[in-house]
This record gives sequence, C-alpha cells and structure tokens, in this order.
Amino acid sequence: MRFLRFGTPGSEKPALIDTDGTLRDLSGEIADLSGAMLDPMKLTELAKLDTNLLPAVSGNPRLGPPVAGTGKFICIGLNYSDHAAETGAIVPPEPIIFMKATSAICGPNDAVHIPRGSTKTDWEVELGVVIGRTAKYVTEAEAPGYVAGYCTVHDVSERAFQIEHEGQWTKGKSADTFGPIGPWLVTPDDVPNPQNLPMWLTVNGKKMQDGSTNTMIYSVAFLVSYLSRFMSLQPGDIISTGTPPGVGMGMSPPRYLAPGDKVELEVEGLGRQQQTITQD
Amino acid sequence: MRFLRFGTPGSEKPALIDTDGTLRDLSGEIADLSGAMLDPMKLTELAKLDTNLLPAVSGNPRLGPPVAGTGKFICIGLNYSDHAAETGAIVPPEPIIFMKATSAICGPNDAVHIPRGSTKTDWEVELGVVIGRTAKYVTEAEAPGYVAGYCTVHDVSERAFQIEHEGQWTKGKSADTFGPIGPWLVTPDDVPNPQNLPMWLTVNGKKMQDGSTNTMIYSVAFLVSYLSRFMSLQPGDIISTGTPPGVGMGMSPPRYLAPGDKVELEVEGLGRQQQTITQD
Repeated sequence: MRFLRFGTPGSEKPALIDTDGTLRDLSGEIADLSGAMLDPMKLTELAKLDTNLLPAVSGNPRLGPPVAGTGKFICIGLNYSDHAAETGAIVPPEPIIFMKATSAICGPNDAVHIPRGSTKTDWEVELGVVIGRTAKYVTEAEAPGYVAGYCTVHDVSERAFQIEHEGQWTKGKSADTFGPIGPWLVTPDDVPNPQNLPMWLTVNGKKMQDGSTNTMIYSVAFLVSYLSRFMSLQPGDIISTGTPPGVGMGMSPPRYLAPGDKVELEVEGLGRQQQTITQD
Repeated sequence: MRFLRFGTPGSEKPALIDTDGTLRDLSGEIADLSGAMLDPMKLTELAKLDTNLLPAVSGNPRLGPPVAGTGKFICIGLNYSDHAAETGAIVPPEPIIFMKATSAICGPNDAVHIPRGSTKTDWEVELGVVIGRTAKYVTEAEAPGYVAGYCTVHDVSERAFQIEHEGQWTKGKSADTFGPIGPWLVTPDDVPNPQNLPMWLTVNGKKMQDGSTNTMIYSVAFLVSYLSRFMSLQPGDIISTGTPPGVGMGMSPPRYLAPGDKVELEVEGLGRQQQTITQD
C-alpha cells in the first residue's frame, strides 16, 4: 500500500492511493501518519479498509513528506561501494552515521533552496527507511518487523559546509528544504526486496546518478540493527541509506546546483520527486 | 523566572518556581513548555502571573526535561580552550557542530544507562541554550532575542562509540538517557551574563570538572547566529555549548563511568542534576 500526506505545509492530511490510482483521504480514519499509526500492524489494518468508502481527493494537491513527527533523520555515509570509490574514500569498516536536521524535511516536489553563502550544493538520491515501532538492541533478523515502509529521499548536501567548515557533516546536510521525502510511504509487502531497487537522478534532464540498492554495502536490516545499538529508534524516524555514484562533487570538474536547475529523482516503486532549485 | 516540568516520563506538566521557592502548576495556563509557549514574549507574560493563584505542587515529584517538543539537540565540540588542550585537539577555527538524538533526552535526575557494549561512558557538564523563536540568518546582535532561556545539560558520551567506530560523533552521543536536561529553564533576565557562569561536575563526590563559561571559545550569541546560517532553529531546540576540562577521557589513566556511580553537576544559577549510573 502507498500512503502519503497532502495539503499545505504543516497542515497536511493523511491519504492512501487505491488500486485505481485514486488518492483517498484518510483524515476521517486517523489523525496523521505518525507515531503509533506507523506500527506495521496498524498500517496493515488501514490497508484493509474499503477504499471506495474513503473520500476521493480531486485535483493535483501539493504533497508533503509522507510521515509526520519525525524525531530523527539519520543518514548513512559512503554506503555504496561504487560511490565510496567515486569520492576517493575507503569503504568504511562500519557504517558511518550522521544526522540531518529534521527541520530540513520537506515535500517531494517543494523547491529546494540553496542556502546563503553556498557554492557547492549537491544532490544525492537515496532509499529511505521509515521506522514503525520502537527499536532498541534488535537483531538483523528482527529488524524488518520494525520497518513501517520505504520512501524516496533526496539528501541534498552542501559540500563546502560539509567538509570545509570543520568536522562533522551535519553542517552541510541540514539547511531548510535539504530533505525532500516521498511522495509515498510504501509498505514492505509492496517492496519485495529493498536490496534490489534501481534508482536514478537527473539534473535538467541529464542523468547524473543511475544505480541500484544492490551495490549497498550495509543492508537495510543490518543498518536498523546496527543503529539500534547506539540509539533507540522511534516510529517516524527516517534512515536514509546512502547514495550511489554520480554526485556533483565526484565529477571532473565538479558540477553543483544553481538557481533554476530542475532535479528529478526516483527509487523504483517508491515514486518520483521533482524539484526546482532556488536561492534562499 | 525558573520554569520546569514535573511528573512521569512523557506525561509531564509545566510549572514554575515562585519567589518563595514553591513549585506552582502551570497546566491550567498552558498546555506545555513547547513551541509558541517558549517565545520570550510569552514567557515574560507567564512570569507576570500572580503565582499565589497557581496550584502549589506538594511533595518531591520527578522532574522531566524543562522543555518539550525538542526537534534538534545540537552540540558544540571542543568549545572550551582549556578542554581542547586536555583532549589534545587544536582549537577549532570554526565551531564544531554535531547532533545528539532527541531520544537521548531525559530528566535531570533520571538514571543514566550505560548502553550494551559500552566500555567508555564519560561525562560532560554543559551550558544549554533553549531556542524560543524560529531563527534563520540572524546576526550575533540579534541572537539573544531568539533565546527562551538556559539550562544545565549533561552531554553523556561513549568515547569508543564516538571515536573508535568510524566517523561522526553522533554515534557516541545518542544512547537513551545520554541527555539529562534541567532541572530548570531559566529565562535570560535571570542570567545576566551567560559567559560568566561557574560550572562543575563530581563523580561519587569527587570534583572532576570545575570550570566557567568564561573560557568558552565561541559565545552563545555567536553560536546561535552561526548555526542559523546552516539550519533554521525552532522553539524548543537545544544547543549544548561544549564542556570545560575534566572529562574521564582526559585523565591519566582514563576514568569512565561504572554502574553504581553517582554523578552530580551544576551550572551556577541553572540548577543541579544528580544521576545514578546503571547498566542497560
């Protein structure tokens, strides 16, 4: 099942997409796609609703991030063997974890703002994992039971802020609009193998990234288990699992985003994002 | 004015301390100390209430963190000239930023749990700054107007997780209970100079840290302004501004926390924390 949220920023309503592709309003059934509503059992219940009884949403509303109440936006660095090679980094012997500010989260098709002082705003298409139940010290075998679903994530990154302004990548990952999420939260029953999803990203129609989660170094199940040793994970937390090759920093010469650029990206089955780049 | 929250974890009520030192329940006036209620103007209004009309809270209730709805828990690394020297690090030419998981936040006197697999759980007394209004691209001169108040923060840190498990400090900073906050949110009118606050920490009664915010490299106003270039700050966000010398990692030989240890810490005027160390 594909869940989503639509409406103006901060006032989004929950919805689902029925078998005909019609967007159906869920706000009469649940308050939001957050907290306890993200429990895999609860999402399974929602998927059993007679969707014909839910109000159809007309027009082409703005989409928000498909989950609300995200307490942590955790990213994995250099998690694709081919991307690690591209950036000149060694394949890390353990996953590299960093945080994006949750205030960076926006809808999948919202404009992405280049922050003031930026010269190196870059793109990264990623597979996002949404946590559905509190996870702490869970094994790799148990990990899938804690996942609410998957989504496309754009981990927008300012490379000068990330690398040239002293330590800790969070500084280059956290500007407002640096975290487009969605369009959909796709439940695991509709994602048979999260380790075999093609993914791509274009800038002004030119393909820049073209990879697959099958070159991921650390799998989704491993990452959920690994993270849960260092912090507890709560419903709505998002794990963005790293990016395949083709980022602007890795090009010769490097190519960064400029106002007016159009970015499109997709993880197969999880929906496409389209963003216009603007200056903050 | 000193604000706080009391009650069981997750169900705390807002309160203030009146001029007689009596704890007064604010839950009839505001839903919680979060979001728009943290605006400096709103806190000034609350401080004008006739506290005799507010219900007195009897007994000795558990205290929670003094603010709710914290979206970001941002920390500054190596921000004391004398602590930087102690750890062998160079004074950073720009502030080092990292994130603690917001799920690490707990009350000031809650037990601190050593996570499984930990061998190097360490202490850090810090001055915490609570944001009261959304701040983005604010100048250093404007920054104080965005501060709701100050609090004592214990930035509990697992040094092996932080340093020996690959990149990015967040991994060693984010375990549950690694972020005791409070007891109080003290409004700026009661903190005449945040850059001249003595602070200390003891383990089993022995003084380990004994410093002052007057050796901070980057001031509170500078940090709020600096951070607001890289991410927007929202009401309830907490900035923990770094620790003075005396952490366990800096001792010879290093001294780390063990189950049964008692830690006390205080930033002068912001209240004292007391924690018992337990094994998770």
